[in-house]
Amino acid sequence: MHLVLGALLALAGHARSQGSVYANNGYQRGFPDCQSGPLANTTVCDRSQDPVSRANALIDLLTLEEKLNQTGSESPGVPRLGLPAYTWWNEALHGVASSPGVNFSDSGDYSYSTSFPQPILMGAAFDDELIREVATVVSTEARAFNNDRRAGLDFWTPNINPFKDPRWGRGQETPGEDSYHLSSYVHALIDGLQGGYDPDIKRVVATCKHFAAYDIENWNGNFRYQFDAQVDTQDLVEYYLPSFRSCARDSNVGAFMCSYNALNGVPTCADDYLLKDILRGHWGWTNEQQWVTSDCDSVQNIFLPHNYSQTREGAAAAAFNAGTDVDCGTYYQHHLPTALAQGLINEARLDEALLRQYSSLTRLGYFDGPDSLYRNLSFADVNTPSSQALALKAAAEGIVLLKNDGLLPLQITNGTSVALIGDWANATTDMQGNYFGPAPYLRSPLIAAQNLGASVHYANGPGGGDPTTDGWLSIWQAAQASDIIIYAGGINIDIESEGDDRVAIAWTGAQLDVIGELATLGKPMLVLQMGGGQLDSSPIRDNANISALLWGGIPGQDGGTALFDIITGKTAPAGRLPTTQYPSKYTQQIPMTSMALRPNGSFPGRTYKWYDEAVYEFGYGLHYTNFSASVAPLSDQSYDISSLVSNCTERYQDRCPFQTIDVEVSNDGDVASDYVTLGFITGQFGPQPCPRKSLVNYQRLFGIQPGQSQTAKLALTLASLGRVDDKGNTVLYPGDYSLVIDTQPLASVNFTLTGDVYTLDHWPQPPPRGQLKSDYFVPGYGSDQAVLEM
Amino acid sequence: MHLVLGALLALAGHARSQGSVYANNGYQRGFPDCQSGPLANTTVCDRSQDPVSRANALIDLLTLEEKLNQTGSESPGVPRLGLPAYTWWNEALHGVASSPGVNFSDSGDYSYSTSFPQPILMGAAFDDELIREVATVVSTEARAFNNDRRAGLDFWTPNINPFKDPRWGRGQETPGEDSYHLSSYVHALIDGLQGGYDPDIKRVVATCKHFAAYDIENWNGNFRYQFDAQVDTQDLVEYYLPSFRSCARDSNVGAFMCSYNALNGVPTCADDYLLKDILRGHWGWTNEQQWVTSDCDSVQNIFLPHNYSQTREGAAAAAFNAGTDVDCGTYYQHHLPTALAQGLINEARLDEALLRQYSSLTRLGYFDGPDSLYRNLSFADVNTPSSQALALKAAAEGIVLLKNDGLLPLQITNGTSVALIGDWANATTDMQGNYFGPAPYLRSPLIAAQNLGASVHYANGPGGGDPTTDGWLSIWQAAQASDIIIYAGGINIDIESEGDDRVAIAWTGAQLDVIGELATLGKPMLVLQMGGGQLDSSPIRDNANISALLWGGIPGQDGGTALFDIITGKTAPAGRLPTTQYPSKYTQQIPMTSMALRPNGSFPGRTYKWYDEAVYEFGYGLHYTNFSASVAPLSDQSYDISSLVSNCTERYQDRCPFQTIDVEVSNDGDVASDYVTLGFITGQFGPQPCPRKSLVNYQRLFGIQPGQSQTAKLALTLASLGRVDDKGNTVLYPGDYSLVIDTQPLASVNFTLTGDVYTLDHWPQPPPRGQLKSDYFVPGYGSDQAVLEM
Repeated sequence: MHLVLGALLALAGHARSQGSVYANNGYQRGFPDCQSGPLANTTVCDRSQDPVSRANALIDLLTLEEKLNQTGSESPGVPRLGLPAYTWWNEALHGVASSPGVNFSDSGDYSYSTSFPQPILMGAAFDDELIREVATVVSTEARAFNNDRRAGLDFWTPNINPFKDPRWGRGQETPGEDSYHLSSYVHALIDGLQGGYDPDIKRVVATCKHFAAYDIENWNGNFRYQFDAQVDTQDLVEYYLPSFRSCARDSNVGAFMCSYNALNGVPTCADDYLLKDILRGHWGWTNEQQWVTSDCDSVQNIFLPHNYSQTREGAAAAAFNAGTDVDCGTYYQHHLPTALAQGLINEARLDEALLRQYSSLTRLGYFDGPDSLYRNLSFADVNTPSSQALALKAAAEGIVLLKNDGLLPLQITNGTSVALIGDWANATTDMQGNYFGPAPYLRSPLIAAQNLGASVHYANGPGGGDPTTDGWLSIWQAAQASDIIIYAGGINIDIESEGDDRVAIAWTGAQLDVIGELATLGKPMLVLQMGGGQLDSSPIRDNANISALLWGGIPGQDGGTALFDIITGKTAPAGRLPTTQYPSKYTQQIPMTSMALRPNGSFPGRTYKWYDEAVYEFGYGLHYTNFSASVAPLSDQSYDISSLVSNCTERYQDRCPFQTIDVEVSNDGDVASDYVTLGFITGQFGPQPCPRKSLVNYQRLFGIQPGQSQTAKLALTLASLGRVDDKGNTVLYPGDYSLVIDTQPLASVNFTLTGDVYTLDHWPQPPPRGQLKSDYFVPGYGSDQAVLEM
Repeated sequence: MHLVLGALLALAGHARSQGSVYANNGYQRGFPDCQSGPLANTTVCDRSQDPVSRANALIDLLTLEEKLNQTGSESPGVPRLGLPAYTWWNEALHGVASSPGVNFSDSGDYSYSTSFPQPILMGAAFDDELIREVATVVSTEARAFNNDRRAGLDFWTPNINPFKDPRWGRGQETPGEDSYHLSSYVHALIDGLQGGYDPDIKRVVATCKHFAAYDIENWNGNFRYQFDAQVDTQDLVEYYLPSFRSCARDSNVGAFMCSYNALNGVPTCADDYLLKDILRGHWGWTNEQQWVTSDCDSVQNIFLPHNYSQTREGAAAAAFNAGTDVDCGTYYQHHLPTALAQGLINEARLDEALLRQYSSLTRLGYFDGPDSLYRNLSFADVNTPSSQALALKAAAEGIVLLKNDGLLPLQITNGTSVALIGDWANATTDMQGNYFGPAPYLRSPLIAAQNLGASVHYANGPGGGDPTTDGWLSIWQAAQASDIIIYAGGINIDIESEGDDRVAIAWTGAQLDVIGELATLGKPMLVLQMGGGQLDSSPIRDNANISALLWGGIPGQDGGTALFDIITGKTAPAGRLPTTQYPSKYTQQIPMTSMALRPNGSFPGRTYKWYDEAVYEFGYGLHYTNFSASVAPLSDQSYDISSLVSNCTERYQDRCPFQTIDVEVSNDGDVASDYVTLGFITGQFGPQPCPRKSLVNYQRLFGIQPGQSQTAKLALTLASLGRVDDKGNTVLYPGDYSLVIDTQPLASVNFTLTGDVYTLDHWPQPPPRGQLKSDYFVPGYGSDQAVLEM
């Protein structure tokens, strides 16, 4: 009780701030001392006990002040108990990444980690097994770093918000725009990161972020810290939440991160409906060791700029009580003591938050001593030859061929004279995007071309930012001196990044001027469109003097090699666009703040499901060969809905199987190639309007030889047939369905559902919600912005 | 003629690009060899000849290819003639500044120049004599650098576009928002830079930029390179052009820069109407040595992204024929040969452009040898003690006191315990803004406080960007340890800069959270609002626990000292806001792309002339004393318009005097202080609507002692009484006029104009103009953006 008084005193004089133990400097990381320290013979160190008992035993040893101190992302530990400091904030988006909890050495061992492509390019591979392998390498390397006290055991990856607007600066961190694709991808990813669905000892804990409807960095004054996403229930359930449902309900992820934005008037970190009713209630994410962290200082922004709480203590308490267990930042540690003193939170909730933290660490073997699983991994397990090969494979699998008049594949041999022009030609860390660590090497297109023995004439080109003709003379010189022109440009982290949404999706005038003048030279020419978000490449598509166009994304440590493997035909291209390539006018038709998906009047809709004027559509991708396909007959042409569901005994009926459909894919050309089998459902059934089509399954087939065929097995579930109604319920409707193979359809099969509608999933209805007063709106789209008050 | 054929060959094969002499590397700068080289006995080196004859004599010596090569900002010179390379692009916005033509040494002599405050703060001084002195120091230092072959002789300053929108990233480079203020300021500035109105040998050539209506960097996809400013003639003449008229017609500036944007459908560098009819025709800017440069690669952007010309040659020719004499970039050098070969330009125009360049250099003594004027200046003339004192004075004169409950002036003596918190507390180059060179020293607020002997507890604060509570613990600790809290924050070059317009004008939530919590501590507290553009400081104004608020702008090399001179009362504050401080909702009410000034429906209008909900209005500023004022009676209470103009024999009748009005200002308090006498005309006369008021003259009075008075003499001209009609004519109208002194009026005098309307200035009417197809528009405000074509 004297501690509560102390907290009250702190309120008056902030005495607590002076020399507080939560200062995040100078702490000692590592493993708890379960051998000889005060914890040695306590339950938390007893491997025979269950994780909850072990965590509770530890919590029982803590004073109230010690408990309050462990609520931030920099957890100071308890020196008197031999409990070390722990940093919850570790990153590993596409490889172990520099972050507060991850510490690379300057040279030698632990000075680098394998740097895979950004998820947007790995998403383009449409190869879940690849994702599982990549994630396994990442968690292996993470464990090696952890064993050297250079990283924690939980990682704040994946970013699994759907990439619905091409301007989004962080879309590159996601696998793409489609909610089914994301759900399938993230299931494989979590499996690889955590080491299975529910292993005794997890490899690492993954963290699905940013829950939910976090889609804006900063667009025209709409900062992520104060954006209030207005989303109707249908769009929320159908589009914004499935990837998170996959994380929580279907993949047993260890952690969630709530986001900066508000959702329908409530900052997500303070949202009982989102964090309790949906996440823990409806999705059954109820294991004690599953915890929620805030995004970094998203608890602070509940106070300002969200203006959601009238007091700082109130903001901290709102997040804490809603179920945000860890505060990335210091707001909890600064304000929860006062909140406790004021009765805004209670100690039982504090114990719950700590139980989730420490039982999670227990499941990671944190208290198990040096002979436990994964503790033998070391730097010898980092960037192994097979990991290097996997990084190259991941890049090559994702690269998408958008245009080819026959120039590709291109023979590049010793002495072939190649002009390599553009700001991506000699790329270094641009190939890593964001959230990365030092790579063992960064092989640019320039290096890769030189490795092929080409005589390369290199010129840096106009970047994605300011036009300047300063270096253009060297461009014309390089082009003049060469037989083949390769322009490698697009956008990079200066244009699309965390904190910066794009404001345009056109190539800049300077870029188009240079590309266009190069195309007048009468030489074979191809363009590499690089970057995470799509650019409107219609001027390149429509220029008859440009033979080929590749989208190379953000390809990681061996990106240049991967690009030239595709260019030369060493690897046949089979990647597919993971997002729609919109025409540049699109960004002027849709304010980024709009969360709506369906077309409405002059609003043209979002994603391939609703938008029909794409430059290149979602799933598009050419090959060096020709494929045909046939779909095996279904068991029936018509299905009674009640029969379908009568066989379904799963708790979550949308997961019940409908039918696994065989698709035989034949290579009719003369180049061996992978092929991504995309299965879309189309049809006029359920709520109007109906989507153009919906991806329901995919399978990548590997190395189909000329004249040969392989069979993809598309496992459809009842969810594949479901539609979401305006209440958020997932429902089976009678009607005529088609399963269509590929974006330019190679085959299809029709069937009918009959009988009564049936609700597969009853959605918990939201409480009445408002709109935050402090919010910004686009001129012409909403009301005035209120003035922030302190 | 064979050269024309060569250019045609170049069109086909770009042969000319290889090893072209216009490559900007490795040239030798310096003065022409008029002593012993091929030019020694030619007319260009003959000081007895007039500049035009001398320049023409040089041009006669050049081959056609040599002429074409001298059309870019990197002029390679003609080695065979001993004509050295010359870089036209030199910067000196508020001191000699790093730029392509300016080369600082790494250490020792010429390693720094005096770094004055940014113009926005110098504008706040409302002291034209100060500006003349500063500009004289800048031109002196420029000459010293030139003599050491470290700078050219022309400088691309001032930026004199009116700062009409608080979001504009380059508003900091201007003296403010008022067109009269800018016109008066720039007249003094050019006088100081050039060394008088029309000296035989100019100190340097100044360049008024960016002509015209250049007001956007990048706002929501509206890039400056493709923005088409739609401005009606009334607004253009009344607001966007007066500062440029002052440059050309009234101040005899040596150079102009056309801008990136288009104006009413025509890129300004290709605009005959703007560059010929208005600039050279209507304003009589007809001396041969007066030249126009493009902004850097604004010629390129006439092709793309403006899409104004169908061909690259056409774009270059359009600019060249409209009167853009120098291309900052390489587009002229690359494309004019082809344009010449195609007959799009002719050699006479080429000779005209070169005549302007070389006669300008002749007027600078470039061909006059080492004994000519200014050639004796050296590094001993750089950053002299008097220049250092002037830099401090310039900063202190501009700082504006916005709120003071009596806390200021504040006694800070040895050992006074001061918390100095915020990202400006320990500022370095943020105090220089943009376009600067290395400073001899940068005295931050922290250094200044320490120099006073204060015991300073410093904590870096939340910046203008991302919120993070990481460092907040040190903030609370600093505040706890101190008796006085000073928060120094706001915005910096990360938030407002070239290429980046702001998207919000509110303090961030994190800043307001910290400021607000500090204000709860019960200690004396003041806030320094720093940065060029205004922030909405109403939460600070309205917080009773914050005693004082100062706007410190971007204060230059001795900014910290200036701030503490004001805080301690060593210097009494007398600066006035040079721009309106808008409430944060303003940016949501007005799209940045709108160029309109007058209120219209929900559009609230721009600048103090039309907007009436300012947080602090233009011209606002408090003192440490109280002033009163009285206006001397006018010669008459009523004036007949025909009598007024009958006495006016000037070519430009708006410049004729109306009356010089004496304003006696008395210091009624007990602190000696400067006072800025602002004279506004108000009244309902001429076209409707009428502005709230219009600044017509100002005079800063210096050191008015308590109980004493001084008299300001406000010289009103006929322009002071004129209004601009919808045709752009400047007209005298009968009606009732008031001259009002100060923003919170201290005195006023009324008079009446009678008789018929009279047109002081007949505006040349624009030809029919369109709107560029490629332009972006804000959703809800305009049509779709067209796709760029190559």
